[in-house]
Amino acid sequence: MPTYTPPLRDMQFVLHELLNVEAELKQLPPFAEVDADTINAVLEEGGKFTAGVVFPLNQIGDKEGCTFDAPSKAVTTPTGFKAAYQQYCEGGWGALAADPEYGGQGLPIVVNNAFYEMLYSANQAWSMYPGLTMGAWECLHAHASAELKAKFLPKMIEGVWTGTMCLTEPHCGTDLGILRTKAEPQADGSYSITGNKIFISAGEHDMSDNIIHLVLARLPDAPAGTKGISLFLVPKFKVNADGSIGERNTIHCGGIEHKMGIHGNATCQMVLDGAEGYLVGEANRGLNAMFVMMNGARLGVGMMGLGITEIAYQNSLTYAKERLQSRSLTGPKAPDKAADPIIVHPDVRRMLLTQKAYAEGARAFGYWIAIELDKAQNHPDEATRKASQDTVALLTPIVKAFMTDNSFECANLGMQIYGGHGFIAEWGMEQYVRDTRINQIYEGTNTIQSLDLLGRKVLADQGAKLKQFGKLVAEFIEREGIDPKMDEFITPLADIGDKVQKLTMEVGFKAMQNPDEAGAAAVDYLRVVGHLVYAYFWARMAKLALQKQGSGDRFYESKLHTARFYFQRLLPETAALIRRARSGSANLMAMPEDLF
Amino acid sequence: MPTYTPPLRDMQFVLHELLNVEAELKQLPPFAEVDADTINAVLEEGGKFTAGVVFPLNQIGDKEGCTFDAPSKAVTTPTGFKAAYQQYCEGGWGALAADPEYGGQGLPIVVNNAFYEMLYSANQAWSMYPGLTMGAWECLHAHASAELKAKFLPKMIEGVWTGTMCLTEPHCGTDLGILRTKAEPQADGSYSITGNKIFISAGEHDMSDNIIHLVLARLPDAPAGTKGISLFLVPKFKVNADGSIGERNTIHCGGIEHKMGIHGNATCQMVLDGAEGYLVGEANRGLNAMFVMMNGARLGVGMMGLGITEIAYQNSLTYAKERLQSRSLTGPKAPDKAADPIIVHPDVRRMLLTQKAYAEGARAFGYWIAIELDKAQNHPDEATRKASQDTVALLTPIVKAFMTDNSFECANLGMQIYGGHGFIAEWGMEQYVRDTRINQIYEGTNTIQSLDLLGRKVLADQGAKLKQFGKLVAEFIEREGIDPKMDEFITPLADIGDKVQKLTMEVGFKAMQNPDEAGAAAVDYLRVVGHLVYAYFWARMAKLALQKQGSGDRFYESKLHTARFYFQRLLPETAALIRRARSGSANLMAMPEDLF
Repeated sequence: MPTYTPPLRDMQFVLHELLNVEAELKQLPPFAEVDADTINAVLEEGGKFTAGVVFPLNQIGDKEGCTFDAPSKAVTTPTGFKAAYQQYCEGGWGALAADPEYGGQGLPIVVNNAFYEMLYSANQAWSMYPGLTMGAWECLHAHASAELKAKFLPKMIEGVWTGTMCLTEPHCGTDLGILRTKAEPQADGSYSITGNKIFISAGEHDMSDNIIHLVLARLPDAPAGTKGISLFLVPKFKVNADGSIGERNTIHCGGIEHKMGIHGNATCQMVLDGAEGYLVGEANRGLNAMFVMMNGARLGVGMMGLGITEIAYQNSLTYAKERLQSRSLTGPKAPDKAADPIIVHPDVRRMLLTQKAYAEGARAFGYWIAIELDKAQNHPDEATRKASQDTVALLTPIVKAFMTDNSFECANLGMQIYGGHGFIAEWGMEQYVRDTRINQIYEGTNTIQSLDLLGRKVLADQGAKLKQFGKLVAEFIEREGIDPKMDEFITPLADIGDKVQKLTMEVGFKAMQNPDEAGAAAVDYLRVVGHLVYAYFWARMAKLALQKQGSGDRFYESKLHTARFYFQRLLPETAALIRRARSGSANLMAMPEDLF
Repeated sequence: MPTYTPPLRDMQFVLHELLNVEAELKQLPPFAEVDADTINAVLEEGGKFTAGVVFPLNQIGDKEGCTFDAPSKAVTTPTGFKAAYQQYCEGGWGALAADPEYGGQGLPIVVNNAFYEMLYSANQAWSMYPGLTMGAWECLHAHASAELKAKFLPKMIEGVWTGTMCLTEPHCGTDLGILRTKAEPQADGSYSITGNKIFISAGEHDMSDNIIHLVLARLPDAPAGTKGISLFLVPKFKVNADGSIGERNTIHCGGIEHKMGIHGNATCQMVLDGAEGYLVGEANRGLNAMFVMMNGARLGVGMMGLGITEIAYQNSLTYAKERLQSRSLTGPKAPDKAADPIIVHPDVRRMLLTQKAYAEGARAFGYWIAIELDKAQNHPDEATRKASQDTVALLTPIVKAFMTDNSFECANLGMQIYGGHGFIAEWGMEQYVRDTRINQIYEGTNTIQSLDLLGRKVLADQGAKLKQFGKLVAEFIEREGIDPKMDEFITPLADIGDKVQKLTMEVGFKAMQNPDEAGAAAVDYLRVVGHLVYAYFWARMAKLALQKQGSGDRFYESKLHTARFYFQRLLPETAALIRRARSGSANLMAMPEDLF
């Protein structure tokens, strides 16, 4: 049975020592009063809730899964899910980062993000219910009319009504331009919506009084393609003028999927049969509105990756210290025992350190980008807001793809550390492999993320956003390059920075001749930029650790070792990635389709 | 629902064109009469059996799994498993490569290996029952007394009695030296065996009349460690002198594991309570005897990797041609349709070509090593036998680890190509991910394989076996280096050959100072050598394809494209692997255990 301990010390290190969160928030009027003590208190309580209430349901949820009752079209969640969700609502956890005007607590996104890391470590499937709800109210908060907001936001923020995003249809996932669900305007200003949606996470369940679906559909006169998609709010139960639950709407669950992982989360086929819906934002601009939710979801999926990386590491470490098997190659380390704990073996350490370095790198990056998001929304200076918006836009695909690819690797390393026991359900590690696998697929596959990064975020503005991030890195290099102790970190950081520049130029030029060159390089390119980002944060963390050398606090020693491991063992992956990215599109495109 | 078409054309290309199997077998007295037509006929029939009988049970087996009835201690296999196994026995498939003295058909291992590729594509879980049986009779054939062989082999070769290998115990898997199961000599020459075994594949089931367990245990006076382990044959039912089934032996299944994949194969806890067993081979030399089975099993697991790589490729390809989503970056390719088939997208092609290149590379390598095994056992010249034995010993860990790591990657690429549908059980792809995952773990984790390669197979004889393989490569380079058309393959092949030499020297020298250096480099080292092997076979295949240019047979065009892809996109992984392998052990070992 796995265990989970919220990594509060490292979370606090990242928030306070690395990112100076209190100082950052002071600049943002809504959060000027949020101090370190408040943040720590929230996270401590959050740790208790996630580890104590949500985590114990993780294996049960996987084993039981959700069940669909065809006659009633009802979905039942696993034992304990509903009760834990009630505790979540009662604890006000759903309202953490929400607008006080609608009942929120008005804390910054960064605090909420740290809380979500713990939720995702504890139980990804369960945490998707509140996670999607948050995404839905964020989208409504940004785009819905005052009337819709007044009617729906307070209950969603409280959590008693949950939310979904209904995008995918059987014939379209990535390519939303071809979606078919129709919305007919009605005399009362509402819309009658008809169509079939699939893969709707939390589309139907028994945890909340109402479910608020955000549905993409086409108006009768809509232009073809993505510019003819509108966004609608479609509640499971209509809501009366006084806010009470009204009659059942004609949106139903047609069945749930049997899938590899996240069994505790219901993945629903949703049938809309003239369901009543309300336009959110402008007609035909639905995809833009939905992108608020989708971008939030992508950052959230990255945090799912971190959550599972962290818990895979924690349990791998426990196992590696307890499991006795074979002797160290350099002679017995536990001569009083039948064999040494497997943590003495170099390759077990390689696997553990990979998990540790990716978890801590992701935490630094993930929390930092959350602060950027807080700045993007709340900084008084417009130029700063714009700069932060650009940074978030640039790096969202890295959060989503790099953090989830690494998570899958780290869960698999955990399974490998457990050996045969890793493959057995009761030990828990195989669930992490199965659960985190979806993170590489949903909210835009990681290939789509890479095309978004290279095409839309980098090449489309001639690398302007990338240069802005590069400036941060360059400033750090200039500042720290004079410290000989930092050499081992600064030299490879500068090197990967140069290489990213050159690779961007090369791919950019090639893509101007032939757009397939971008598609052929994108996936490797994303990982290269991901390593630049991690190298930057690991160098910054190494700096802090070096400053505390001799302090006697072994936390910093551990950090320094992990930084060295990152630079010596993980960053070198870029040598292969760059070669592949540079190899061009011909080796992919020259082969005629019928020769496959 | 996945489909499966035995890749007979490529199998025949490898056997006949690449490996000249008929000419190779002519040199081996027992197989001098085995001609190409016979081989093709066997494989065609084998293809019908695997695709027609075994494959349709794959998803059923996954869904139903095996069930354990505690009162009777009986295990029931999924619907159809038993009937298919009867067909297998009746078809004589179990006897393919077995000694005619015991009812075998006396065909070479290479034919059997090609047949097993198809079995593993069709249904890994089912195929483990006959696969383990074959491993068990191979071991008995090599080490058991004439009496035991006469009594047990015919039924096992016929398949009506199946076999297992009982090594692992709750406290020991990798480290068999600490195993505790005890064997007490009895007055009648038999042994009374008591202990607990876990993870025993096919340990109990309803498919055969008897189950013959090969059990590792300790004699009362045995020395500690691996030199005190003996091997015993322990039948589920004792066998009377006339060969009929006698009384039930006291070996029972205590339960089965719930695991990530291979649900159709029963993974059993086995309890031996004074079970009657018979010594196989010499006392205290059991591990050596078992290594016959284990080496065979390791080659077999590699073939499981190939089997799943192939079927993942086939189905990914079908999906990529059928699924319409988005337009090609270079303009619509199917303007009459709502979107282009996703095979137009560069990254989808990268994923498909990775699967194809790894499948075809593994087939070339896997069949070639099977011929080496035939030569090792049957060549009239002792020096040739020895050379082939060395080659097989050297490359067995590569077959096991490289082919299974690639298989897991390729199954995951398949899932990625399927997008959201990849995560859904009914589409079948996620089962391949779950099934092939065990291949990286069992029969010695892939870390253990890498230590075996670097420590025992390469460094222990100062690289003599590796040099022998290197000579093959060097001869090919010398011969083909004069052909300018081969430049694009020969240059990188020569380069990776040089790098393997240098890396071996470097790691060897470092390991003399500090054995942890070997442990720190081994996993990356294995993949580098794996790429040398694949580069060699891909260059050979490219040569054949170039010779057939202009023949109008597009099979060779496809081969040439795939070879180019391998050299340009997959081989460059070595750039990162070599850096990591050279980075030394300090970045793994310097961190004290309590700082993790």
